[in-house]
Amino acid sequence: MPKKATKPKRRLREKRTKGPKEIAKAIEEIAKKIVREINSSKDPIFVTKTRGRSNVSFDEKTGLIKLGKKTTARNFLNIGHARKFMQTMLVMAKTHEYLKENKTAAIREIYYELKHTLGESKENTFEDQSESDACIVDVEHAVDTIRERLNLHANPKGSLYGDITLRDRMHNNDTFNCLKLGRGGWSIMSRMEPEEIEIRKVNAKFVLVIETSAMYERLVEEGFAKKHKAILIGTGGQAARGTRRLIHRLRYEKKLPVIVFTDGDPYGWYIYSVIKQGSMALAAHSEYLACPDAKYIGMTLDDVERYNLENVTEKMKEGDIKRAKEMLDYAWFKTKEWQRQLKMAISKKIRIEQQALANKSLSFVADTYLPEKIKNKEFLD
Amino acid sequence: MPKKATKPKRRLREKRTKGPKEIAKAIEEIAKKIVREINSSKDPIFVTKTRGRSNVSFDEKTGLIKLGKKTTARNFLNIGHARKFMQTMLVMAKTHEYLKENKTAAIREIYYELKHTLGESKENTFEDQSESDACIVDVEHAVDTIRERLNLHANPKGSLYGDITLRDRMHNNDTFNCLKLGRGGWSIMSRMEPEEIEIRKVNAKFVLVIETSAMYERLVEEGFAKKHKAILIGTGGQAARGTRRLIHRLRYEKKLPVIVFTDGDPYGWYIYSVIKQGSMALAAHSEYLACPDAKYIGMTLDDVERYNLENVTEKMKEGDIKRAKEMLDYAWFKTKEWQRQLKMAISKKIRIEQQALANKSLSFVADTYLPEKIKNKEFLD
Repeated sequence: MPKKATKPKRRLREKRTKGPKEIAKAIEEIAKKIVREINSSKDPIFVTKTRGRSNVSFDEKTGLIKLGKKTTARNFLNIGHARKFMQTMLVMAKTHEYLKENKTAAIREIYYELKHTLGESKENTFEDQSESDACIVDVEHAVDTIRERLNLHANPKGSLYGDITLRDRMHNNDTFNCLKLGRGGWSIMSRMEPEEIEIRKVNAKFVLVIETSAMYERLVEEGFAKKHKAILIGTGGQAARGTRRLIHRLRYEKKLPVIVFTDGDPYGWYIYSVIKQGSMALAAHSEYLACPDAKYIGMTLDDVERYNLENVTEKMKEGDIKRAKEMLDYAWFKTKEWQRQLKMAISKKIRIEQQALANKSLSFVADTYLPEKIKNKEFLD
Repeated sequence: MPKKATKPKRRLREKRTKGPKEIAKAIEEIAKKIVREINSSKDPIFVTKTRGRSNVSFDEKTGLIKLGKKTTARNFLNIGHARKFMQTMLVMAKTHEYLKENKTAAIREIYYELKHTLGESKENTFEDQSESDACIVDVEHAVDTIRERLNLHANPKGSLYGDITLRDRMHNNDTFNCLKLGRGGWSIMSRMEPEEIEIRKVNAKFVLVIETSAMYERLVEEGFAKKHKAILIGTGGQAARGTRRLIHRLRYEKKLPVIVFTDGDPYGWYIYSVIKQGSMALAAHSEYLACPDAKYIGMTLDDVERYNLENVTEKMKEGDIKRAKEMLDYAWFKTKEWQRQLKMAISKKIRIEQQALANKSLSFVADTYLPEKIKNKEFLD
């Protein structure tokens, strides 16, 4: 076992999250302040956190990527800010309405809902979803919450399989065990907040997060979950927010260790790091989404020699090599082992996929590769 | 209702599919013939169907894209054929092994399983998955079956929601109702053959196939499935084979009409056409995968004016316009209505997404758009 199912260190506990009423109230407070400014003929100002690398840092203590305290003010009477100010107000008003009416929307839906031509002008409120997306982040930061609690969400992606019983509080309290849904498993939702989806019961020793859908299917097929008491989560590439939230909750609510299994290439390793430390783009939300003590099981470039997989490596593309070079500089990849791994990728210019293990035999990954590494605690940290 | 739940026309019934033993036997027959040729010092020949446009046609009678009868012979002693001949033999032997040992594999797995260096040479059996994929199609055609029955499959994708009870015969006979799995629904598997997944019971009037995951979630959220007795299938873009097979089975086994709902652009319309008539790449398998009487509900470019969505259209990219022009020439888009629709796209250069309906209100699609069109039978055919 990858470590006993110990409690995560206390300092990693997630921040208390605000409830819908508190969030609606916080939005109202900002709106009232702006109305007061208008009424007293002052320039209305909206304050949010500064984004971008200048305000993002890696917190060694918690192992999380975090957003700093720098703030940005947006003045309505500044011609460079006016449009964005207007857009932000629209997003704030609409999410406030969602909260009051208990509705939820996809981020593409709020974009479409708010898009219209202003008065007699030819000016549209939004020209592109990237504009409303940016406003959503601004409101998240201003109110200090995650978008799911503004009743917004991105697209769902990911599957769940294993002895875990969920209850959907918003859907007749449906209660179902994800080991009893055939081999397909459950489609993870875009919103995985505890108020909506309750984790009723888990009978497992750890969570195995898997990059490719095909490898997820292989492990289901091989009976890996039952035999090793694992919860399997297939992310289908980069993990969606709902999937990250579920992994986070399994770690923090259910104290399950999290093991990540991806292709052996910069893209796969980055998927791992996003699950573990969070991402720069969502630096403000690492506490809700990340699992700083997640472990990486593979694929590593050392596996190539160890398991004689030289024949089934692939050449890395230029873009991958560039990515690996960038990652060398990320604070959260500064460990000796990851530096070695990244440098090996850059010099050998090869990558190795999860499914390349089929070169040994179809069941090799489930019979040998994973159990061996788990037993010997051979993880990258 | 889109038409009463009538039986599909008899001529559209799917071909009887061969069982695993018959298929193994067919592979053995081909192998024996080749061995005989070798033993009598003849040039061994492998015969399969010719692919590509020259052998693909649209069958007006059945409404299916079909592969013709032209065959291609591959001679081992022809230096241009030898490598591919060797590869095909490897794939044939391996799928025969899968059938005998009751194993299944993803198409990427068989590629990796078979990839190795030949003897003392520096020659690899395969350099790229496209090579083994091509051999798989050749074996499918030579044996006259679908890859799922060679125990192969592609990646899974797609979600299922509604009052439908499935049983997974290969997984403890798990029996579950897809209306009782919370709002996530069931993850559709890559293999949806009746021998594995049995459709036990369906309580629905029609199947609604939805292009985007977000719209699928919206309709789940709005209670559309219950209110209108619909089975919802989210394809998440182009439908995966497993998803197409499930749609096909719901039409043919359960006699449910199939309605398709995609973005209003050439890509979305093509998704529809693949579900309805099949695709050129898989022309040989249309009978197993397609639903020639599926109906198209939207989005159409007429919806833009009808619902005042002018503000929320998007500009078509050059690639989309090119695609629309190609589609004008496809026999299965030769109906008056589709020609009009495609020409409108080409001249107006706009597209309209499903989620653009949120511009009216979040629930507009579920309360008004779909029910109105279904009631009035406003479909494109």
